[in-house]
Amino acid sequence: MKNEQIVLAKRPEGVPGDDVFRFEDTEVKQPAEGEVLIKALYVSVDPYMRGRMSDAKSYVAPYELDKPLEGHIVGEIVESKDNDFEEGDYVVGVLPWQRYIAVATNRVTKIQNTDVPLHLYLSTLGMTGQTAYHGLLKIGQPKEGETVVVSAASGAVGSVVGQIAKIKGARVVGIAGGDEKVKYLTETLGFDAGIDYKSNDFAASFEAAVPDGVDVYFENVGGEVSDVVLKHLNTFARVPVCGTISSYNNTGEDIGQRVQGILVKTQALMQGFVIGNYKDDFQAAGKELAEWVRNDKIHTEVSVEEGFENIPKAFRDLFEGKNFGKQVVKI
Amino acid sequence: MKNEQIVLAKRPEGVPGDDVFRFEDTEVKQPAEGEVLIKALYVSVDPYMRGRMSDAKSYVAPYELDKPLEGHIVGEIVESKDNDFEEGDYVVGVLPWQRYIAVATNRVTKIQNTDVPLHLYLSTLGMTGQTAYHGLLKIGQPKEGETVVVSAASGAVGSVVGQIAKIKGARVVGIAGGDEKVKYLTETLGFDAGIDYKSNDFAASFEAAVPDGVDVYFENVGGEVSDVVLKHLNTFARVPVCGTISSYNNTGEDIGQRVQGILVKTQALMQGFVIGNYKDDFQAAGKELAEWVRNDKIHTEVSVEEGFENIPKAFRDLFEGKNFGKQVVKI
Repeated sequence: MKNEQIVLAKRPEGVPGDDVFRFEDTEVKQPAEGEVLIKALYVSVDPYMRGRMSDAKSYVAPYELDKPLEGHIVGEIVESKDNDFEEGDYVVGVLPWQRYIAVATNRVTKIQNTDVPLHLYLSTLGMTGQTAYHGLLKIGQPKEGETVVVSAASGAVGSVVGQIAKIKGARVVGIAGGDEKVKYLTETLGFDAGIDYKSNDFAASFEAAVPDGVDVYFENVGGEVSDVVLKHLNTFARVPVCGTISSYNNTGEDIGQRVQGILVKTQALMQGFVIGNYKDDFQAAGKELAEWVRNDKIHTEVSVEEGFENIPKAFRDLFEGKNFGKQVVKI
Repeated sequence: MKNEQIVLAKRPEGVPGDDVFRFEDTEVKQPAEGEVLIKALYVSVDPYMRGRMSDAKSYVAPYELDKPLEGHIVGEIVESKDNDFEEGDYVVGVLPWQRYIAVATNRVTKIQNTDVPLHLYLSTLGMTGQTAYHGLLKIGQPKEGETVVVSAASGAVGSVVGQIAKIKGARVVGIAGGDEKVKYLTETLGFDAGIDYKSNDFAASFEAAVPDGVDVYFENVGGEVSDVVLKHLNTFARVPVCGTISSYNNTGEDIGQRVQGILVKTQALMQGFVIGNYKDDFQAAGKELAEWVRNDKIHTEVSVEEGFENIPKAFRDLFEGKNFGKQVVKI
């Protein structure tokens, strides 16, 4: 069997170019006792990985130079040296970008429900769904009739945030870029309104879409979009801060609206979070999410790129607004 | 008896000039049934009043044009039409800037402990002490050995914040403007370090003063000082946002460091608050604060301006860094 991996060739400045990634042939390792050999089926590419490519202080360690990049992967076990795992089992875990991976079984989770598409374990039933669930429900705490705004609303996290907010009875306004995505928010996902941040009258359209102000703003983007939204926060608003994709490729300072004055005026709360904080609640949340998927209460749009060799391209597309929904690569 | 009041003559732009205030002679009203007539003894001037002078949306209603300005006042009852209040009782409440005030008794609180200076009911034993107490302990939640930073640290709120943080076993770094105030922080208030935000090497001095980063930042100022502090937040840091004095007189946008990226990296929490949110806990907090005052665990510096006619000047001085500790005006 041929094996292949993608290593970090250099740390990027701005959007990672081709020279940041290097393909290397490598051996297929035999699994040791307590390990399994996994054949990668679906590889997830996510915006947070850009942060790990730099060596700045962050909530996850930076990727090492000349070592394989890694991320969430769904795979099939082709050989097992652990009695709890069998050939043919499906697993998900944070694994190196490699065609075949031998790892200890404590680094993967067995996929229990295979009655749904497996790649959903890279989105709605995986980390991005969990991120939406806990960020929205634990920090955002939307109440029936409140207005919930989510940015990057057609993305993997944002689309789930909005749909859960609908389930909870909120009025949901999504922000996305371009006509197609905005239509998708209202027509496919059932949001109450979709606003195009690329349009010239974004600020005015947004204001018109939130006549009662903003009670929850699920922050995925930061930057100028956020500057506009934050001016409409209501008293006691909650802002789960999940990501700031607009600034991940900034090499300089992130300058814009200071929030302190807004927070004082509204007594609002902003809280950054990473999904690891909610580990203890993953199982219960996963069960509820799977139920919503089965009942068609949560629709998941997946953008599938094909081929191991296209992983870097799929990653870069994240920063150019090309992806629609969750971006995965099918091997 | 001569009566006199100060009304809002026009809404200010920037620091309020003389033309914003108008002195008017008025009658001394006789108290009706259920009212008392109060002689003003001490008038509090506070930064938040600048916000009420504008007609922008905020957590308190704007002052009305051509009506008396109002704020916290300690006074003595000179005539009572309520059996629960006697001539000679001392009270505190939000009252119009007037030499003699007839009001319903439900608008004032009787001062119980007169074994401390009465003007402390305008600071440590009044709203600013309560603000420090609840903002620090409910949102900031400092733990022993953590680093607590407070800005406007020599001010009415900041000085109490730092001293309570010391009582709780934290390492306390205060930020203030000028040698005299910085010395006061360490020499009089017992802070571990004091940093002068007006010095050229403020950012470097601050960094040196927080070798273990910042666990709690009690925000009183916003602006460039805040931009520097927020870069040093630790994981799970808490930022009670009490005020943004640096921007109260801004007529334009408040542009500077965006916080979203910092919040994601640190999973920190920022929360704006006003003291009214904690009304139910005022009595218990007041008792604890009074005990700390009696035991000399909290020192209160008061800057006393004399004379009713100097109220506008005392208010303006707040924005020029001239006040030292709590600013009150003795009538």
